[in-house]
Amino acid sequence: MARGSAGESVLHRHLRVLESFDAWHPFLTLSEIADAAGVPRSSAHRLIAELEREGLLERLPDRTYRLGVRLWEFASRTPGAVGLREIARPWLGAVHERVRQHAQLGVLSGRDVLFIDRMSTREAVVNATLIGGRIPLHASSSGLVLLAYADNALVNDVIARGLRPYTANTIRSGAELRAQLRRVREDGYAVTEGAIHPESRGIAVPVTGPGGSVYAAIGVVVPNDGASTHGYAELLRRAAAGIARELALAYRPDVDERTHGIRSLVSGSRRSLEYLESLDTDPHDAGAPAPSGSSDPATGAGLGPAPVL
Amino acid sequence: MARGSAGESVLHRHLRVLESFDAWHPFLTLSEIADAAGVPRSSAHRLIAELEREGLLERLPDRTYRLGVRLWEFASRTPGAVGLREIARPWLGAVHERVRQHAQLGVLSGRDVLFIDRMSTREAVVNATLIGGRIPLHASSSGLVLLAYADNALVNDVIARGLRPYTANTIRSGAELRAQLRRVREDGYAVTEGAIHPESRGIAVPVTGPGGSVYAAIGVVVPNDGASTHGYAELLRRAAAGIARELALAYRPDVDERTHGIRSLVSGSRRSLEYLESLDTDPHDAGAPAPSGSSDPATGAGLGPAPVL
Repeated sequence: MARGSAGESVLHRHLRVLESFDAWHPFLTLSEIADAAGVPRSSAHRLIAELEREGLLERLPDRTYRLGVRLWEFASRTPGAVGLREIARPWLGAVHERVRQHAQLGVLSGRDVLFIDRMSTREAVVNATLIGGRIPLHASSSGLVLLAYADNALVNDVIARGLRPYTANTIRSGAELRAQLRRVREDGYAVTEGAIHPESRGIAVPVTGPGGSVYAAIGVVVPNDGASTHGYAELLRRAAAGIARELALAYRPDVDERTHGIRSLVSGSRRSLEYLESLDTDPHDAGAPAPSGSSDPATGAGLGPAPVL
Repeated sequence: MARGSAGESVLHRHLRVLESFDAWHPFLTLSEIADAAGVPRSSAHRLIAELEREGLLERLPDRTYRLGVRLWEFASRTPGAVGLREIARPWLGAVHERVRQHAQLGVLSGRDVLFIDRMSTREAVVNATLIGGRIPLHASSSGLVLLAYADNALVNDVIARGLRPYTANTIRSGAELRAQLRRVREDGYAVTEGAIHPESRGIAVPVTGPGGSVYAAIGVVVPNDGASTHGYAELLRRAAAGIARELALAYRPDVDERTHGIRSLVSGSRRSLEYLESLDTDPHDAGAPAPSGSSDPATGAGLGPAPVL
């Protein structure tokens, strides 16, 4: 592994530069990047030049930089983010229509829940997440769901690294966390009341993936008003069941040893998909016959009638 | 710059691994990655391990790999892709509602147009693009729009590298391309008839960004039936004007020297944004007062009433 002077991999240094950017700071100068990434300006200059050459950073006319659309291009091929998000969106929308606060979809990423989609009304309660933002697993109802069905090694790791207390209601001991996770497995859903902000309550349920394991969590953030959570949990369960059904359908059966498409990544019109499958420009299959999946092409993701919950 | 034996940068080798994945091949084994990336298995093993450690690749229970959600996380902070896409989506939807074929949004990426969004009906005509897919600039109406307003150096480069002929109607000489680009600048829109598939026609117009330059192209792909293109061009111009207005609004005026947000990246409820801005967990501003932008928070992107064209 190529390493810099501090024993850090070159890849890790590139990613530190990319991590300097966030939703609040999408445009940065060279010296802002150097400061945020904690690297000398000369190193920052070199790392930025390499990233710019590959399209991962873009320089603007005012000499600031922004994250490049090439990152989005890679992201558009992620089954665990874009694939899932496209499939889940109509269901998330249906939950949002009913609840009119925040409805969100999260996946496990390290020791955090990463929110890959959210719908909110302008007057909804406080919700500390952004789309593309993270919350520690123990503080979020979606995080508790993901942790409840994860390896015990992850639970131990989360506890060992300490549970950040956001409010007096955040789970703060390992014993309390383990008890909550047992309860999530028993109830099939998680509730956090004022764990991040006293005003807000989260309710979340698991979404099962095509392999049968928990793939994501779908949840709502609503006022912490003591009302019953049962209705929310039922609504979310119906949405999760719908997403799970469509996830199972979205994974195409293998048409040969090497082709495992996922429909939501290749949505389009029927004739377009047949045409695309007939092109021999695919580097994986150059000269090979087109896969036989064209008799069962992808449906236009998100274009069907909205599901009713 | 850290380089491998072939004089290739380490970053470039990592990206070649990531490029092995596409919408048709979202799940690959180690040896499939080695083959697609053109690297020895031992190198592939090491590169994959580094990428997996950083969350850019994920290993599945069946020992295949997929692109990791960390890529999506970076992508969620790209003003030129996610920011633009969120702003443009209702307008693209309004075009799609009227045309009921394909409506799409593309940006310049190298010598290609990269499509960052598309809406299609199942029975629409052949369209060779995928969301996240590329088409050479000369073959696409969106590409011609982007090239017509780009540096002349790019035009020269595109011509020097050769114009791939998809059909008898694809532009195939530099003189023809330059004449078309002049016409696009005169008319304010581009038309390609059967340039990729004889059945389909593309019409596209430029979208102006907050700095006044061309930021994207919005277009439709419709039957190549010889009907007038004027109505399509007018519809697209109205959508492009709407997107341009909202792009200009989305770029927050600087609240201090270091903060340049873009509203569509931080959409959420009013109270959530105030809360987020009050948190002092921001690595860029640790301990500094919250930016004063909270009096004019972001609106919930895409949640307003659909625009009418």
